[in-house]
Amino acid sequence: MPDSRFFHNSGSLTLSAIASLTGATLTTRGGQAPDGERVFGDVASLEQAGKDDVGFLDNVKYLDAFAKSKAGACFVRPQYVSRAPEGMALLVTPEPYFAHALTASRFYPERETQPVISPQAIVAASATIGKDVTIAPGAIIGENVSLGAHCSIGAYTVIGDGVMIGDHGRIGAHCTVSHAIIGQRIIVHRGVHIGQDGFGFAPGPQGILKVPQLGRVLIGDDVEIGSGTCIDRGAGPDTVIGNHTKIDNLVQIGHNVRIGNYVLIAAQCGISGSTQVGGGVMLGGQVGLAGHLSVGKGAKIAAQSGVMTDVPDGETYGGSPAVPIRDWHRSSVVMAQLIKKKE
Amino acid sequence: MPDSRFFHNSGSLTLSAIASLTGATLTTRGGQAPDGERVFGDVASLEQAGKDDVGFLDNVKYLDAFAKSKAGACFVRPQYVSRAPEGMALLVTPEPYFAHALTASRFYPERETQPVISPQAIVAASATIGKDVTIAPGAIIGENVSLGAHCSIGAYTVIGDGVMIGDHGRIGAHCTVSHAIIGQRIIVHRGVHIGQDGFGFAPGPQGILKVPQLGRVLIGDDVEIGSGTCIDRGAGPDTVIGNHTKIDNLVQIGHNVRIGNYVLIAAQCGISGSTQVGGGVMLGGQVGLAGHLSVGKGAKIAAQSGVMTDVPDGETYGGSPAVPIRDWHRSSVVMAQLIKKKE
Amino acid sequence: MPDSRFFHNSGSLTLSAIASLTGATLTTRGGQAPDGERVFGDVASLEQAGKDDVGFLDNVKYLDAFAKSKAGACFVRPQYVSRAPEGMALLVTPEPYFAHALTASRFYPERETQPVISPQAIVAASATIGKDVTIAPGAIIGENVSLGAHCSIGAYTVIGDGVMIGDHGRIGAHCTVSHAIIGQRIIVHRGVHIGQDGFGFAPGPQGILKVPQLGRVLIGDDVEIGSGTCIDRGAGPDTVIGNHTKIDNLVQIGHNVRIGNYVLIAAQCGISGSTQVGGGVMLGGQVGLAGHLSVGKGAKIAAQSGVMTDVPDGETYGGSPAVPIRDWHRSSVVMAQLIKKKE
Repeated sequence: MPDSRFFHNSGSLTLSAIASLTGATLTTRGGQAPDGERVFGDVASLEQAGKDDVGFLDNVKYLDAFAKSKAGACFVRPQYVSRAPEGMALLVTPEPYFAHALTASRFYPERETQPVISPQAIVAASATIGKDVTIAPGAIIGENVSLGAHCSIGAYTVIGDGVMIGDHGRIGAHCTVSHAIIGQRIIVHRGVHIGQDGFGFAPGPQGILKVPQLGRVLIGDDVEIGSGTCIDRGAGPDTVIGNHTKIDNLVQIGHNVRIGNYVLIAAQCGISGSTQVGGGVMLGGQVGLAGHLSVGKGAKIAAQSGVMTDVPDGETYGGSPAVPIRDWHRSSVVMAQLIKKKE
Repeated sequence: MPDSRFFHNSGSLTLSAIASLTGATLTTRGGQAPDGERVFGDVASLEQAGKDDVGFLDNVKYLDAFAKSKAGACFVRPQYVSRAPEGMALLVTPEPYFAHALTASRFYPERETQPVISPQAIVAASATIGKDVTIAPGAIIGENVSLGAHCSIGAYTVIGDGVMIGDHGRIGAHCTVSHAIIGQRIIVHRGVHIGQDGFGFAPGPQGILKVPQLGRVLIGDDVEIGSGTCIDRGAGPDTVIGNHTKIDNLVQIGHNVRIGNYVLIAAQCGISGSTQVGGGVMLGGQVGLAGHLSVGKGAKIAAQSGVMTDVPDGETYGGSPAVPIRDWHRSSVVMAQLIKKKE
Repeated sequence: MPDSRFFHNSGSLTLSAIASLTGATLTTRGGQAPDGERVFGDVASLEQAGKDDVGFLDNVKYLDAFAKSKAGACFVRPQYVSRAPEGMALLVTPEPYFAHALTASRFYPERETQPVISPQAIVAASATIGKDVTIAPGAIIGENVSLGAHCSIGAYTVIGDGVMIGDHGRIGAHCTVSHAIIGQRIIVHRGVHIGQDGFGFAPGPQGILKVPQLGRVLIGDDVEIGSGTCIDRGAGPDTVIGNHTKIDNLVQIGHNVRIGNYVLIAAQCGISGSTQVGGGVMLGGQVGLAGHLSVGKGAKIAAQSGVMTDVPDGETYGGSPAVPIRDWHRSSVVMAQLIKKKE
């Protein structure tokens, strides 16, 4: 169970309450209804769960762990009910991970802390600070900044002049944010840098000239940005990130990039300048997108791929240079056969 | 036009003044001379420009946008004059991007701010601080540091004992700089770490021993370093970065690396220890160079390549492991043919 | 020799003392015993060493530099004794780099500084601070934190509530550490972020839900972590890093990752969630490991590889997708032959 030094369990739930919260159906391997009044106190992984914990089976790699689990209850898809251990209460749902997330959030809600503006913060008199805002020690809030209600700004984070952040924004420690207009409920983890100059240099007769970067960073609602990620501001057009887009750690987003809604970007991806990423796109870890490209809506790019051409809507690409995923798989097969012949 | 909350336009220019500033020749699609006294107030992208704005066409991908643009004037290469829309004033130049940069810098010059050393900065008494230096709140300037005239040090940035930075250096917020001797006019963006220990470990009978890192980081004039980039100091020899070299975000530069003048390094590249990179080299995004290699003067390495061997002067390499670019392209063609046969 | 502005030489050693410290055998190219009373004042690279310096030959790439070196003495493997220049004192050892590290550490020991807790640090009253701890200006030590004896915490570093760090830990400037239990003698370089939320999102009928991250980061003894690296805490299980493991700069370690003892991870690697890395594994630069994999004990992964499958104990893999290294090399050979045929 979570370490109580770091996490604070808000109390138990009955099995019926958990089923009701998640829309899951109660059963057991044998098909009998389990006792809905049975009380559960925590979530846990299949390996670590005990009789009072609720586990989840989302990835078939863990079917063995499921079969051996001591979890008292478990979220599971209908097709795996028959693989459950004897006596385990089953919460059947098409989305076990989603149900787990809902339940874990109920056991461990965000802690309400008393909003406070640290006397060691530096807040410009011209800044507009919403209701119930928290500003940690050393944070610097520039001229004409606007922070919405319930925002929280981490220690030593620097918010540049004119930046606007919507309600319920949480910016971690050690961030810098400049030249940016940000929507509601953003979560920015630690050490993120938003709004610096893009990499714009013009080689010419008088040497390499720095090109003024005159655009902004526009970020929608419900966006999350991982630690160490850098988002450059636009060169003239803006850099744009859509609603509900989630970005992992150490990602690079170049100037003028436009990212749609509901995009998932795994760690260490790099998106070069002026490239457009459609809504619902998923990028695996360490993917690189060259500049001035378009990755169509709903496309998926396999980890470590290098995309050098436009990707049509809904396609899955892999490899470096990236090609349709079936061609990438075939090239692995062909190469394996050629190697075999040489032996 | 740039958001006036973030950018400050210094006033209009006549078409003749712009032509004179950039060395461009004035014409129109039809060959008539446009009115040199016509006044322009801003730069803008081809899509966003209006009749009082100056655009630029540098990348053929944007020829359609050029043909449809409402820009009053545009920098363009001679061969695309015939593709211009009716009535657009054309500023013909072989280097449209360079001309744009010059013009944008005239409309949006660096703002002169009053130099000030924050009372919340911590400056060692033994430090030598040049004329008109700005030091932001929380910056720490160590013993015997030397900062040249007109330097600016960002909030919470830590400059270690003995570091020297030349005139007009700008170090962003949240940086650390130690064991370094830096030339004039450096621009270091936010969250950059310069001078930490290289990754030096000696496995041996007594376990893994940490190898003392006894070199420095030497950086020339007119260098720019992007956010989140890490430059380790030398292990004994120094880590060296030449004049006019520009480094993008989240780049890793290992100990003892020697980089020449006028090198361009895109985001997320990694250069392993003791590798030498000649003058004028260009590295695409996410390139990795193995250790103890030499990349010759003027070489170009395609994005995401992994260089495992020396690269001769002036060559272009691609792939992982990287090979001459013509071989890399051929291997894509060969593979495509093999896949086709299988179908 | 190291720049005395940054490094402090603690005094000379006789050749016999150096041999005794490192277990090396004294000889010369001709086989005569050199004068053991000869005094040496420094270590240096083969190119830079003079007659009073001790060099080392560890990489055969530097055999020419060795043959031309002016170093008065040099650590060298037995098989290269005959390649030494006339008159050079030879310190023969199977591990020249290890011997160099020992000797360099003797010339340049860690400087003892007076432990001091800065009045500009913010230390919770409930924190337990060991003997002889140093806390730099602006560091924030949270509630119930425990810092072992002789720990040092860098400027502006934020240690979150409940974190425990063992004796002799050194955390650089600009780090954040939360939800972590850390062993003895850890070295964390600058700008490292440990303990933030992993990238856990559950797509479902109500949109993308953030999954509470309820695990910790557990780090063993004698670990070193490079600048800019991010280590996410577990989602439920913990993220675990074993003893003596060394991690370079800008590495991403996802939630629930388990890394064994004596693992070496080069710069810019990314390890996806729930993957297990066995003891003694070596990862080259920019390697990516997909999630939920197992990389067996002692395995080696070539730089830039993308590992999509389990790797057995002791194997060497390369390529993206990664395959056994012999297959990767063969595929390069096969491709080169196919290209040749096309010419």
